[in-house]
Amino acid sequence: MEAYLDNSATTPVCTEAVQAVLQELNVIWGNPSSMHRVGLQAEHLLNQNRAALAAGLSCSPGEIIFTSGGTEANNLAVLGTVMARARQGCRIVTSSVEHSSIAECCAELARRGYDVVYLGVDHTGRVKEEDLAAAINKQTILVSLMAVNNEVGTVQPIDVIRRMVRQAGAPALIHCDAVQAFGKLPVHPQRLGVDLLTVSSHKIHGPKGAGALYVRNGVKISPIMYGGTQEKRLRPGTECMPAVSGFAAAVAAIPDHTQTLNYVAELRDRLVAGLQAMPGVFINSPPDALPYLTNISVPGLPSEVMINFLTERNVHVSSGSACAKNSKSRVLQAMGLPDSYVTSALRISLSRMTTWQEIDAFLYALGEAMATLLRR
Amino acid sequence: MEAYLDNSATTPVCTEAVQAVLQELNVIWGNPSSMHRVGLQAEHLLNQNRAALAAGLSCSPGEIIFTSGGTEANNLAVLGTVMARARQGCRIVTSSVEHSSIAECCAELARRGYDVVYLGVDHTGRVKEEDLAAAINKQTILVSLMAVNNEVGTVQPIDVIRRMVRQAGAPALIHCDAVQAFGKLPVHPQRLGVDLLTVSSHKIHGPKGAGALYVRNGVKISPIMYGGTQEKRLRPGTECMPAVSGFAAAVAAIPDHTQTLNYVAELRDRLVAGLQAMPGVFINSPPDALPYLTNISVPGLPSEVMINFLTERNVHVSSGSACAKNSKSRVLQAMGLPDSYVTSALRISLSRMTTWQEIDAFLYALGEAMATLLRR
Repeated sequence: MEAYLDNSATTPVCTEAVQAVLQELNVIWGNPSSMHRVGLQAEHLLNQNRAALAAGLSCSPGEIIFTSGGTEANNLAVLGTVMARARQGCRIVTSSVEHSSIAECCAELARRGYDVVYLGVDHTGRVKEEDLAAAINKQTILVSLMAVNNEVGTVQPIDVIRRMVRQAGAPALIHCDAVQAFGKLPVHPQRLGVDLLTVSSHKIHGPKGAGALYVRNGVKISPIMYGGTQEKRLRPGTECMPAVSGFAAAVAAIPDHTQTLNYVAELRDRLVAGLQAMPGVFINSPPDALPYLTNISVPGLPSEVMINFLTERNVHVSSGSACAKNSKSRVLQAMGLPDSYVTSALRISLSRMTTWQEIDAFLYALGEAMATLLRR
Repeated sequence: MEAYLDNSATTPVCTEAVQAVLQELNVIWGNPSSMHRVGLQAEHLLNQNRAALAAGLSCSPGEIIFTSGGTEANNLAVLGTVMARARQGCRIVTSSVEHSSIAECCAELARRGYDVVYLGVDHTGRVKEEDLAAAINKQTILVSLMAVNNEVGTVQPIDVIRRMVRQAGAPALIHCDAVQAFGKLPVHPQRLGVDLLTVSSHKIHGPKGAGALYVRNGVKISPIMYGGTQEKRLRPGTECMPAVSGFAAAVAAIPDHTQTLNYVAELRDRLVAGLQAMPGVFINSPPDALPYLTNISVPGLPSEVMINFLTERNVHVSSGSACAKNSKSRVLQAMGLPDSYVTSALRISLSRMTTWQEIDAFLYALGEAMATLLRR
């Protein structure tokens, strides 16, 4: 048996998504911009896909800009906002625990002279509301905060930002990277009070190569690429139709959130109970983290050694973000964890397809690893 | 029978590509950046895909940067070069007949203060070598010219640029948009003397959502998006693996160029013979155009009316570029064609899968259209 417990890196593709990709490849393969019937059929499929995503985000189809993935959507949100609002201010407020696509965009903007404020987090990985309020000033053109942290599962206080931006009289757009939240929690941009929100296909059992940026009606950002008139000129080039079609099908296949969340919470409780019975294992995720993600450390056992030991036993976990390969976790460092925890971190991430057997296989293999490797 | 003659907009997906996409979705769906075995298998697949593309371009795998498509690759080439070389000069030399992804990038750079020279073309759509030589000066940081025009099929003199750049002592990188040439002619970046070269999957019977930029060994350009370390940091974010896998399979499935070119030239000759027998039809493509593309005009019959008439009879052609929907062709205007030709232009574009029957169906329907519509 294979135990795949790295669902925050990528997920197996659901059959609904595979079928949708196949239909696009074999039947509706036209270019949505073509004026003839082959093109119109593709345009119709694109509209259906957009409607499916809009339904998943409780927004209108005109608010969805399809991209090639979460990283592109995050870049469009951050760079597109800054290019559109550069005359209104120079401050960008974000956190020190964002995904690399936000962190690296902000680092680039700092090199270009923008005033980037990276908010620290408490020991649970959460930004403090008073820090957020203090950082947002009249010069702030963008606040970007993730909904759920991709390494530890901490849920951030997104819905308080709108009030703070108003109180500060800031010309800021609010962006939320909801890649790890979408499909797991109800994500409702309007209720969250955000202007921009990023989602990704391959984290919710869709294919790689598609993502989307929600852009609230009336909000203007600049494109970061130039060319055709597709996606309201915000994302030129022929649409990534096979992946977008699979993405839409995966969104439509998301089951009831409450039921799934309960199921995954039960899996997480079993996992945590098992871990707590193992001396030398420390749980880094806070108790109120999204149950899909559990971050642990086994001080003395480097992450890479452990991952290799486990994968040889058909148990697959990660040390953190796949997009920050071979680097020490910024997230765990920001949470104030000692170096021995950071260098031995493991991320166990679940999906609605995860089974009890996979949890047990992990716990068994982890015990074996500790018995074998720590003894040396 | 359906006659699909808009292969320069997009092509039907070959069975090899469909199979490769399916394998990625169902079997090798890991994240290539993950350290465990599921990830390593995906990384191995990505390496195989890169090798397949490198073989198709007679270059080394390390010179291939996968993107989400031709438009992204063109943006990376143009904006990435300018960001990397901004200190060395401010001139960009291109033509007035480029694809919208090059034209719009250059327009954006002109707005930012760069000195963009748009070279005119002769009546065949070809840039004059003396104009190229005169435009490239010591301030030139980029020369971007397409290999084959996407509306009329004109082949541009790419291989003379290197010498001109050397003679001018220009710090220029040379970029070639080879989207319409790749898979139809041998495309060999090193022999062409270019530093950067763009190709796209869905123009060669691969899926939409993948493209690549050839970046010659040792050439440094800047990324246009920021995030993970994928694709040498030039294109961050999880790779568009299903589409990239289909792209690689489509490249591997490209048959011998000479044989296919002869076949398509025969189709084109049959098409042209039929057109020449129809008074009132004018051929805009030069005789030495790539035989895959034939641009015609029927003055008095607006393109859109004709396209609608033909598509109702299951014959699908376009008025020009799908990425420049609803705008008058810049290409035909640059070639000096009268307005009555520009507004009635039709592009008939073939592929190796096109049949004699499709050509005949088009000719028959065109005759019918002229008899029906011109009489009114």
